[in-house]
This record gives sequence, structure tokens and C-alpha cells, in this order.
Amino acid sequence: MTKTAAIIGGGVIGGGWAARFLLMGWDVQVFDPDPEAERKISEVLANARRSLPGLSDVAMPAEGALTFHAEIKDAVAGASWVQESVPERLDIKQKTYASLQEHAPADAVIGSSTSGFKPSELQDGMENPGQIVVAHPFNPVYLLPLAELVTTEKNPVETIDRAKEILTAIGMHPLHVKKEIDAHIADRFLEAVWREALWLIKDGIATTEEIDDAIRYGFGLRWGQMGLFETYRIAGGEAGMKHFIEQFGPCLQWPWTKLMDVPELTEELIDMIASQSDAQSGMHSIRDLERIRDNNLVGMMRALKAQDWGAGALLNAQDARLAQDIDMSGLITTVSRAVPLDWTDYNGHMNEARYLQAFGDATDKFMELIGCDGEYIASGGSYFTAETHIRHLGEVHAGAKIEVRTRCLLGEGKKMHLWHEMYEEDRLLATGEHMLIHVSLETRRASEPAEHIAQTLGGIAAEHAKLPMPEGIGKAVGKR
Amino acid sequence: MTKTAAIIGGGVIGGGWAARFLLMGWDVQVFDPDPEAERKISEVLANARRSLPGLSDVAMPAEGALTFHAEIKDAVAGASWVQESVPERLDIKQKTYASLQEHAPADAVIGSSTSGFKPSELQDGMENPGQIVVAHPFNPVYLLPLAELVTTEKNPVETIDRAKEILTAIGMHPLHVKKEIDAHIADRFLEAVWREALWLIKDGIATTEEIDDAIRYGFGLRWGQMGLFETYRIAGGEAGMKHFIEQFGPCLQWPWTKLMDVPELTEELIDMIASQSDAQSGMHSIRDLERIRDNNLVGMMRALKAQDWGAGALLNAQDARLAQDIDMSGLITTVSRAVPLDWTDYNGHMNEARYLQAFGDATDKFMELIGCDGEYIASGGSYFTAETHIRHLGEVHAGAKIEVRTRCLLGEGKKMHLWHEMYEEDRLLATGEHMLIHVSLETRRASEPAEHIAQTLGGIAAEHAKLPMPEGIGKAVGKR
Repeated sequence: MTKTAAIIGGGVIGGGWAARFLLMGWDVQVFDPDPEAERKISEVLANARRSLPGLSDVAMPAEGALTFHAEIKDAVAGASWVQESVPERLDIKQKTYASLQEHAPADAVIGSSTSGFKPSELQDGMENPGQIVVAHPFNPVYLLPLAELVTTEKNPVETIDRAKEILTAIGMHPLHVKKEIDAHIADRFLEAVWREALWLIKDGIATTEEIDDAIRYGFGLRWGQMGLFETYRIAGGEAGMKHFIEQFGPCLQWPWTKLMDVPELTEELIDMIASQSDAQSGMHSIRDLERIRDNNLVGMMRALKAQDWGAGALLNAQDARLAQDIDMSGLITTVSRAVPLDWTDYNGHMNEARYLQAFGDATDKFMELIGCDGEYIASGGSYFTAETHIRHLGEVHAGAKIEVRTRCLLGEGKKMHLWHEMYEEDRLLATGEHMLIHVSLETRRASEPAEHIAQTLGGIAAEHAKLPMPEGIGKAVGKR
Repeated sequence: MTKTAAIIGGGVIGGGWAARFLLMGWDVQVFDPDPEAERKISEVLANARRSLPGLSDVAMPAEGALTFHAEIKDAVAGASWVQESVPERLDIKQKTYASLQEHAPADAVIGSSTSGFKPSELQDGMENPGQIVVAHPFNPVYLLPLAELVTTEKNPVETIDRAKEILTAIGMHPLHVKKEIDAHIADRFLEAVWREALWLIKDGIATTEEIDDAIRYGFGLRWGQMGLFETYRIAGGEAGMKHFIEQFGPCLQWPWTKLMDVPELTEELIDMIASQSDAQSGMHSIRDLERIRDNNLVGMMRALKAQDWGAGALLNAQDARLAQDIDMSGLITTVSRAVPLDWTDYNGHMNEARYLQAFGDATDKFMELIGCDGEYIASGGSYFTAETHIRHLGEVHAGAKIEVRTRCLLGEGKKMHLWHEMYEEDRLLATGEHMLIHVSLETRRASEPAEHIAQTLGGIAAEHAKLPMPEGIGKAVGKR
């Protein structure tokens, strides 16, 4: 049966909750007196629709129904979850809860998006305080999985369990904070960094861009996959977390920040951290953690490389510096690279799709060489692959140096017929035979290439026709 | 001509520098009195060799030569760059510099890995202070590109330029900090967060694991690609950075952290931040930034998904919850998903390699259904793809829902011959014909599958043989 969530207060956060519930198959009923609410939520929803479903490798449930309501009582009718994202003022929030508790089902969970208030403050004076929890999300709510679930002793166990279950069902990680404090956990860190950043700018040490670069080219990448303590556990090495704190601890007394109140590093505190770290990461050796970290970093940095952003843009710039001139006599070496860590699979070798990725890169390079480069593509012409035949002749592993040598079998009219051979040194790993068609990117139909491309392509095809024909061209699957 | 770097002090940081220089084609000469230095550096180098080269999409230079030296004078001979990573004690560092300046080429840059000392402290009393800079890296040095380059007015412009040039040449981003402070920039943030984390643990609010989760499931992912200010610029929306600070600023006065010294948010400071943010990100609209952020997040989270780690492990768990039973009567729907944002390319459609990725996923699912699952693969048997033929019949875009329906053409002995059809609703997008061979993962040679697999596979093949044959089987590239 389709479940219903009530979204009280739209905007970026409320809209993000609405989008996550909808795309996870819930019906969503919105209450927001802002006349712009519908537009704002629809914009967030558009972003969510383009990004969230593809995160999943299986089919998502059918999207729920989105409705807008002028009265709170209509918005909360039949809701299992009510998410409050009204402005951060305690009086407004409490007035909202009074109305919610009057109309919402008694067993609905009322979650607050508050980033600052403690749940006991929200619950104070309410008729049914046990129904109210903090469920603090992070923007963009439809992508980031963290929800800080903060509860008090007034929340019945069943309410807490139901809250965890629902947050998990919509793809979030309910981080249960059992001892409430102002700003919960994550925002304490954000605040600490924000204050330090304001000092750095005020004192003229760094600009906003330099601060962002200091984060995203360094520890931001570490934190995106392991956080703080697991990262430091690795830094501590085989000597362990206790050793790390003992070494690093004294630095805390140095005048490194504007904010100087430091807890005393008693034996008790050090032991507490070390044993929590053992419980968290002790199942992995430091060597394992190093390799897990490196696998994660390579994957994330290569993902950013594909977007030409952040650390990935730096990698692209470095590639451009390293790129060498290509020898156009004979077969053309269109790819020369090492197999990345994220190209291997459960069989311990380069995944079949990565063979085609490398052949695709070879085709891209060949296109560039014949003049079908970024500028030409921007002007509206390109080649699309119509057909591919790959023979996998040898396995290859992460780190191996591979080369693709390319032969043009035909370059005439709209057609371009290519033959790629992939080698590790002299060992032939695979062949790729590809038929490409020149297209107009406007009509998405076959079209003649520009004259300079046709000429260059024809010239290369004529040169390559003089070379001995390789074995394996024109074969179908399973035919020798 | 091969350039030479001297590494003074091995360990994790010195070893990371050594690995980065070596893999970027430099000769590296190490001085470290620690008898374990050679082992430690070789371990870091092993990690670097498996992860760094594949980050590049072009060929890396040939690896340089690594030598160990018992005397500083031999280690620095001919060096263009000398990197000091000795313990964080000023007296040890200064003693080291005295010896370095006695023997190193006068035009070599001496970079210090110090995370705490200011360059003026390092330069103080040295014969050639202008030669010494701070070049502070982040672990793992061979992967993370950030190097904080901190200089003083004693450093000649040519030295600073050469330092930038060399750091850039080895794939790093020299973040030039012109006004020295203790701990430079990034470590100020790390310190602020570390202190706050210690308080949270001491006060029993959160464990190390909960703190790490609060980071890596939320803002850590944001910071890995955009940092602090660009993220907040988006949060500010079209109203801009100034509006965001004015809204968010007051929270700074709340008792949210243990560390409370806050700069006053004067008009001047707000204007400074807003105009720096404009200079940094003003070329992108907020809508553009939202989509860039989402593209980055999807790419990074999918990269983590492939490693089954962090936010990616959460996504895999969610997929398992969403997975539905598969109908085995007739053709088998082996993939049902949305096209992720990171599967598209410069032609604005799903990249050719992602067609094979989806077909590969379909093959994986089919293998699982016939009993060739994780457990069986762990026991030493699997199927490898020997040959593939893809026909691209239609374009498809990010967000589209696609399905792959699979037919078993043959399942006999070591052979498995599959036919995949990819659809968007009723539109046929592509066909994939694949010959797979059962292999022993020990010998990496063809072998008979287990009896239960042979039986299930044979049964499915017999059922599928009763269905009408699809068009396009057994074709070679370019043949109708």
C-alpha cells in the first residue's frame, strides 16, 4: 500500500524531503503558505528526478503522487511521516506542532529538520511529545543519505524504531543521537570550520576559493569516504590509534586556531577513543585500510575527472601536460595508459565493459586526429558507434600498461570502420571492430562529415590499406 | 633530462613524496637514518604503484631510479628539489637545513613537509633562507593533489615560481599561502574539527564511528568536490552569498560548539566574502552549480558503490531492499534501472561502453540465476566473456528507464551463448550477443561448470529454444 508523507514547509530542505519520499514511491502532501512553494518544490524535484534514480542499480518504485494543500489538516491526513522544515524559530515550530498534533494520525512520526534545536525544546509543552523527533538532513536531501535522528527519553522505543525504519526505507542512514546537544553532531563540525574560515578571510590569510581548494584537493576527499577517525587510524599506522593520539595530541596545545578550549587528553579519554576505533575499524589491518582508502580515492577522483571538476580537473590538466605527440605512420597508438583500480571486477581482472571504454577512448582519439574534435562536435557534427565486435583474448589486471593501436578499415561517406588492437607489451589482449556513422547532432540522423574530415579520413584509410590485414576482421560471435 | 629529488626523512609522508616523484619520472635519492626506512618507503611505493598510474588517462613517464644514501651530501647531489619530512621539532629541522645548505645545489628548492611551523621559523638563522619554503602535503601524498606552498618575503620570486612549476609538474596543486600562519590553512580546519570531535567523545555524545558516519554520509561528500563556500553559495540560492551569511551568521552566536570566539560579521567582512565568492563561482548560476554538484555527487557515490564502501555501501543495501523477484518464464528481465548521470558523454547520450556495462550487469544477474553466484565464484569457478557483438539501434539519455531482457541461445559444456536486448519501454535500444566460457579461477583456463549450474543452464536454454528467434543473431560488423 502506498504510504503518505506530509511535508510542512517547502523550500530547499522541505523540497528535498518531498523529492526523496516521492521517488521512493510515497505519496507526498505539502503544506506551505509561501505562494512560491509549488515552484520551489518543483525545481528541487526536477533536480532529484535527474540524479537520484540512476544512483540505484535496480528499478525504483513508481513515483508517488504530489499534492499541495492550503490547510495543515489536509496535508497530514493519513500521513505516516510528517516532516517539519519551517523557519528556525522555536515559537514558529511549536505553534506548528500544536496544529500538527491536532490533525495528524496519532501514530505518525513528526520529524523536524532543525539544525540547531534539541528535541526536548521542540517537545516542551506539547500534548504528545513522544511523537516528535529531530530528523536533520543534509542538502541535497535527495542525494545525501545522512539523517541525524535525535530523540529524548519521552520518545517511546516503538516511535524511534518506526522512525529508523522509515528513514532507512527511503534510502537514508538514520544516525541515532541518543544524548541531545545543540546542533547535534555534524553541524558542530560545520560551525567549527565555518568560524575558522571566517577568521582566515578576515585576517586576509586566504580567499573563499583558496579555502575551498584547501578542502577539496585534500582532506575533503578523505572525509567523503572514511571520515576523521578512520583516516587518522591509518595515519597512526600499525602502532594504532592510541599511539596516534599520543603523538598528535600535544599539537592541540599549540596556537593553531583561534578557538582554543581543548579537552584534556587523559588516559581515560585516549583509551575510549582507541577502543571505539578498534570496534569501528579493527576488522581491517592498516594495510587493508590503506588499500581500501586508495581504491575509494581513485574511484572518486576518476568520477570527478569525468565531470572535469575539483581534483578531477587537476588530473585532466596533468594528463594534458603528459600527453605526447602521436606517430601517424603505420597503425596509430590511440591509447597508452595504465589500467585503473576501478576498472577491475569480481573476477580479479579488467571488466569487459572497460575494454569497450578503452576502445571508445581510442575511437575518440582517432576522431580528434581526423579533425572531429571538441570544436567540430560543438558545431554540430559527430560520429556515433553503430556496431561493435570485441574478442577478449587475454586477461589484464589493475596497474598493467596497455596500448590500443588503431587501423582505419574504411573511411568513406558517412561510414568509418575501425579496427582496434589492445596490447600489454606484445601480448594481444583484445580486438575491437567498430562501425561508426557520421551524424548531425541536431537531427540525430546520418549525415556527411565536413570536407576536411572526409579528406583526412580517406587519406589514413588509403595508407592503412597498404598494411597487412589482421586476422579476425568481419567475424560473427562464435564463428572461427 | 631526468630530474632528481632528494627525500630527507622517509616514513609515510617522505615515502609518499618519494613515490610521487618516482612515478612522475624523477630520480629519487633518500636520506633517512632509520634502519627501517627502506622497508617503509617500499611499502608506500607499492601502494602508489597500484593506485597512481591508473588515475591518468595517458601514459606516465618511465619510473625514475630510487637510491638510498647514508650521507646527506650524497642524497642531495644534483637535486632540483629537496623535501624535508623529519620530525616536527624546530631544532631538528634547523640542524637538517644547515647540513642541506652545505651540500645541496644553491638553486635547489628545499621544501618542508611541516604541518605546523611557519616558513619564517624554518628560515630563521639559515645561511640561505630564501631557498626554504613550506610544501605541506596530505596523506596519501601520491594521490591527493594538495600542497600548501607557504613562503615569506625572503623567498625570491624565481624560487617561488620554480616551486610552483615543480609541484605542478608532479601533478600537485600548489596552494600559495602568502601570509604565513601557524598550521597554514587546511590543518586549521582539521584542528578545529579534531577538538570538537574530542569533546563529543569525552561528553559521550557520539562514538568515533558515529562521528565518521556523520561526516562521510553528509558534508564530507560535499566537501570532496566543492569545499565550504561554494557549497554554501548554493545553499544561499539565487539571493546569493551575502544573503546566506546574513541568515546563517546569527547562528554563530548560539552555543553550538565548545569553541566560541567568533569574528564580528561586519558589513566589510560580509562584502569581502561575497565578492570573493563571486570571483570564485560567479561564472555559474545557482542552478548550474546545483547540477554540477549533483553530477559530482552521483559520480562519487557510484564510485563508492563499486567499492561497497561508505555512502556507496548504503546504496547497495538500499538496492538489495528494492530488488524484486525475477520472472523466469520466457525471456528474463536481468536489468531494470535508470540511466545514471555519469553514464552519458559529450554526444549527450549514454556512452557506448555503458551499453556493455549494462549488458555485463545482465550477464552477472543471469549467472547468479543459474547458480554462478558469489559463493560459487569464491569456490573457484566463473564465466569469462570471450566475445561480444553489440548493435546500437537507438540513443538513450540520463534518467531514462531501461530494461535488458536475456535469452540463452546455448548452455552446453563450457560454453554459454547469451543474447541481450535493451529496451526503453517498447523501443529497442541495442542488442548484445555474448559468448562466455566457464573457467577455473585457479588455472584461468576453460573448465566444466558444476553439475547444478550445467543443469539449470541447460534447462533454461531448452525453454528459450521454444521461443521465436530474434533478428540479428550471428551477424558480423557491417553485415546485414
